[in-house]
Amino acid sequence: MIIQKTSNSRIQNLDKDNISFGSTFIDHMLVCEYENGKWGEVRIMPYGSFSFSPAMMCLNYGQACFEGMKAYKDQKGQVFLFRPEKNFERINKSAKRLAMPEVTREMFVEGLKALVDIDRAWIPQGEGFSLYIRPLIFATEEALMARESNKYMFAIIASPAKAYYSAPVSVLISDYYSRAANGGIGFAKAAGNYAAAFYPTQLANEAGYEQIIWTDDATHGYFEESGTMNVFVRVEDTIYTPPVSERILDGITRDSFIELAKRRGMEVVVDKIPVQFVINAHKEGTLKEIWGVGTAVVSNRFKAMGYKGERLTLPLLSDEESYAENLKKELIGIQSNQQEDPFGWRVLVEEGVAHK
Amino acid sequence: MIIQKTSNSRIQNLDKDNISFGSTFIDHMLVCEYENGKWGEVRIMPYGSFSFSPAMMCLNYGQACFEGMKAYKDQKGQVFLFRPEKNFERINKSAKRLAMPEVTREMFVEGLKALVDIDRAWIPQGEGFSLYIRPLIFATEEALMARESNKYMFAIIASPAKAYYSAPVSVLISDYYSRAANGGIGFAKAAGNYAAAFYPTQLANEAGYEQIIWTDDATHGYFEESGTMNVFVRVEDTIYTPPVSERILDGITRDSFIELAKRRGMEVVVDKIPVQFVINAHKEGTLKEIWGVGTAVVSNRFKAMGYKGERLTLPLLSDEESYAENLKKELIGIQSNQQEDPFGWRVLVEEGVAHK
Repeated sequence: MIIQKTSNSRIQNLDKDNISFGSTFIDHMLVCEYENGKWGEVRIMPYGSFSFSPAMMCLNYGQACFEGMKAYKDQKGQVFLFRPEKNFERINKSAKRLAMPEVTREMFVEGLKALVDIDRAWIPQGEGFSLYIRPLIFATEEALMARESNKYMFAIIASPAKAYYSAPVSVLISDYYSRAANGGIGFAKAAGNYAAAFYPTQLANEAGYEQIIWTDDATHGYFEESGTMNVFVRVEDTIYTPPVSERILDGITRDSFIELAKRRGMEVVVDKIPVQFVINAHKEGTLKEIWGVGTAVVSNRFKAMGYKGERLTLPLLSDEESYAENLKKELIGIQSNQQEDPFGWRVLVEEGVAHK
Repeated sequence: MIIQKTSNSRIQNLDKDNISFGSTFIDHMLVCEYENGKWGEVRIMPYGSFSFSPAMMCLNYGQACFEGMKAYKDQKGQVFLFRPEKNFERINKSAKRLAMPEVTREMFVEGLKALVDIDRAWIPQGEGFSLYIRPLIFATEEALMARESNKYMFAIIASPAKAYYSAPVSVLISDYYSRAANGGIGFAKAAGNYAAAFYPTQLANEAGYEQIIWTDDATHGYFEESGTMNVFVRVEDTIYTPPVSERILDGITRDSFIELAKRRGMEVVVDKIPVQFVINAHKEGTLKEIWGVGTAVVSNRFKAMGYKGERLTLPLLSDEESYAENLKKELIGIQSNQQEDPFGWRVLVEEGVAHK
């Protein structure tokens, strides 16, 4: 690993209470380039730009996938990653499906620890603050041929994130647009999946909904995901979530919610969720909550859902009554070292690990 | 339109008989940037690079679409585009579906003519030679937020292309992988659609097939496209091709083949093609040809198809007997001004139009 530190740190500009999420970047980034059938040396270098022409293959044929993860700083200043092995496994599943080279543990896990160690001063301390981390792989060969690229870049960039209250949102159950096909790439964190979702989301916004509940493309009869999150439904005291498949992302927050709920003795059913089952539960008054989960917001509760032209209001549970809120609180507690971690999910980033 | 000509033309390096297709670019490119809700000035400038960081939105969320088109030089040295209005309409359909700003006629059609005019010396003359042209739009904002970008680049780049003989290929009828979902983006020339096809194509290659015949994702019972091309099937003397839909690209070569066939009095049926219909016709000996059509190769005949573990050999018609070959010859004749153009498809690029 080559470490080239910046001589112009920008950290004095960091105002923790006014972070522009996603456009403020830490001093360094990790970069590794693939050529002639192999990855080159891992480099940690000042965050910055490369040069590209419009013939860059990623811009033309969309070979690109990414991960989203966070680092947390506890009250003593110790820094933790959350289940990084899961992201490492998943980026390689995405890469494989997109005919891209898989990355090594050294590049992903060890590289990530070194980067976070070097820029640990950038991680804001305090309730809900974190460092949002974005590993990505994209095709860099400059050629107009509709085939897999011969050159790639793996990069890790990161942006400090402040705590934000995620107000309950309204969601529209999709009866036309889809995000994934059978035998497609819905399970991958492929760049193209996101672009495909923006226009249907704009239409949902215009109809008064913040997000879409995606349904299966063949029948629109089953819940799949919600916005860019996995979805959970609570009927009476039972939690339902769809099984992962080639159309549904194997979310790490999803998996963590399931584990936490089971440990509390809650009943969790991982099975297909028919739209009609949810609508009927709403009619009968047994539908208690619906929420989405993902790395960025951890979880987001829904206050209303649109279905076939009707807007159905969901109950507003108190934080104490809400399973979504209770599980979220516990998860954040584990992530930020405020409570015991019986699962071994937290991974300490040792100080000075970058130089070992 | 701002025209900034290169002072270092690379045209002396162009060896028409040894063109490296897709990686040799003409001296200039067209560029136009979108910011603050509007497109800036159209610039024709030396082909080259821009700087970007790994936070560029296109690399993360895949907002990118493109067109493929060609310019031809006739024996007198006149230069023609082929149905450019169709590409202009289609790129805007793609852009809309990907929540990207549409481009103007001035940027696309007039810009294209100016670019081709300036670099007309790069267009190789002779049977089958052409200039392959790639207009594309991609998201350039540098931010990690899963929403549509606020900044875009529209570019047109081009690469000289030599005539190449497209040998008949073997195709595998897909019974698992899919390229498009109902309510998805299959009809758009979206970057992400191509990346999604590479891995299934690799698997087909390993099984001894060059391309995939994509089928509908719900049942795999109907032909949709073939590789990156639209597909035609001839049974006895009738030509079949699937209707365009939200899953199938509205191909300009497809449309031209249909028009040419109808004009010759051939029977053309635009309707769903059940896989079983093709397999049965093969058994009964009435299946005459299957071929794909697209801008790059115009058309490519198939010599065998794989289905449920069997390799079915297709008849090898002579060029005279083949509808695919006859229609291709006529289309290239029209494109390159070797024969009359009753449809008004050819568009002359006037000399000096860039400076008008």
